[in-house]
Amino acid sequence: MRSVLPQAVRDLTAELNRLPGVGPKTASRLALHLLRQPKASVRQFAETLETLHENVRMCGTCFNLADQEKCIICRDSGRDTSLVCVVEEPLDIEAIERTNSFSGVYHVLGGVLSPLEGIGVDSLQLESLFARITGSDIRELIIGLDPTLEGEATARYIRENMPSGTRIKISRFARGIPTGGDVEFADAMTLSAALHGRKEL
Amino acid sequence: MRSVLPQAVRDLTAELNRLPGVGPKTASRLALHLLRQPKASVRQFAETLETLHENVRMCGTCFNLADQEKCIICRDSGRDTSLVCVVEEPLDIEAIERTNSFSGVYHVLGGVLSPLEGIGVDSLQLESLFARITGSDIRELIIGLDPTLEGEATARYIRENMPSGTRIKISRFARGIPTGGDVEFADAMTLSAALHGRKEL
Repeated sequence: MRSVLPQAVRDLTAELNRLPGVGPKTASRLALHLLRQPKASVRQFAETLETLHENVRMCGTCFNLADQEKCIICRDSGRDTSLVCVVEEPLDIEAIERTNSFSGVYHVLGGVLSPLEGIGVDSLQLESLFARITGSDIRELIIGLDPTLEGEATARYIRENMPSGTRIKISRFARGIPTGGDVEFADAMTLSAALHGRKEL
Repeated sequence: MRSVLPQAVRDLTAELNRLPGVGPKTASRLALHLLRQPKASVRQFAETLETLHENVRMCGTCFNLADQEKCIICRDSGRDTSLVCVVEEPLDIEAIERTNSFSGVYHVLGGVLSPLEGIGVDSLQLESLFARITGSDIRELIIGLDPTLEGEATARYIRENMPSGTRIKISRFARGIPTGGDVEFADAMTLSAALHGRKEL
C-alpha cells in the first residue's frame, strides 16, 4: 500500500500491526494517537518496553514470571507448598489469585500439548514438574488447564507419567454452568458435566 | 486489583491499557505476548516509539504529518496546488491517496468544530487555511470532512468565513449509497441524498 505518512509513523504502525489482534487500520490509529500524546509519556512507554526483558525472568521453582530468582508466590512462606496447581500460563495464576480461594503454589507449563502446533513434551515444563514432585512433600496436584482437547491430553500425559512410587492425589477443576450463565444456552458437554457433578442442596 | 505479576509486566500492561480500545485484559495479553518475543524485536519497537516525536513534525503548509519542513505531498511539484482538499486528520489523506483519484493538495484541520468537546475555532487550522487562501491561486476548495453534525458545522464555518474578495469554488464529497452497499438498509438521509444526487445513465 502506498502511504504518504512519514517513515517514523509507518514504522510504528508496522510494529503495532505485529501485535496479536491489531490490524493495519487499528495500528495506524494507535500510531496517530501516540503521536498526539505528550513526548514524555511516549518516552515512558518506550522505556518500559525497552527494559521489559531485563526486569522479568522465570521463577526457578514454578516457572511463573518473576523479578527475582523466585516468584512472589514461591517466596511467600505462608503458601501451602504441598498443594500445587498446574496451569498453562502466568495469566491463569492472576485469575486464580483473584478468587482468594487458593493458598497453594503453582507450576506453569508454558502451554499445553498440541502436536498440530508443534508443541510437544519438550516444549513444556513437564520434566521439571516431575522432577519437582520427586522426593517432595506434595500431596495434591490440581490440574488447572483449560477443558479443551489439548488441555485434556496434557492432563492425561501428566497422570500417566507421574514419577513411580508417588502417591499424590490428582484433581481437576469442577465443570458446570458458569455463575450467571444460562442453562438454556449451555452446550451438551457442559450440561452433562453439570448433571454428573450435581451437589445436594 | 491485586496482581502477582512482576512490576515490569504490570507497568507495561498499564501503558498498553492507556491505548484507545485496549482494555485491561487485552493489555495483559499483549504484555505477555511481548515478553515472549525476542528481546531484539521488542527493543526495536521501543526504539521506534522513543524516536517517534523527533522524526515527525507538521507540514508548515498543510499541517499534514511530515518528516521535513514540508510534507511529501507539498514537496511534490506534480500536484495541483490550485485544488485544496480540507480534511480532518492525516489518515483521511491516506484514504484519499489510496483512490489515486486526487491530484490536488490538502489542508489538515486537526479536527472539526465541537463545542461539546471544547474544540473551537482556535483549536483547528482554520486561520491558517484562510491565510493560505488569501492571495493564492487556489480555485477550488473540496470539503472532505465527515458528513456528521460537527463536520457540517465546520464546513459552514469555512464557507461563511472565507476571506472577502476571494472567488473560490467550494465543493464537498458526493453523498449516496456506498459501493457494495444495500439500498434496503440505507438510512433515510443517505437514501434521500442518493435520490437528489442521482445521475443519468
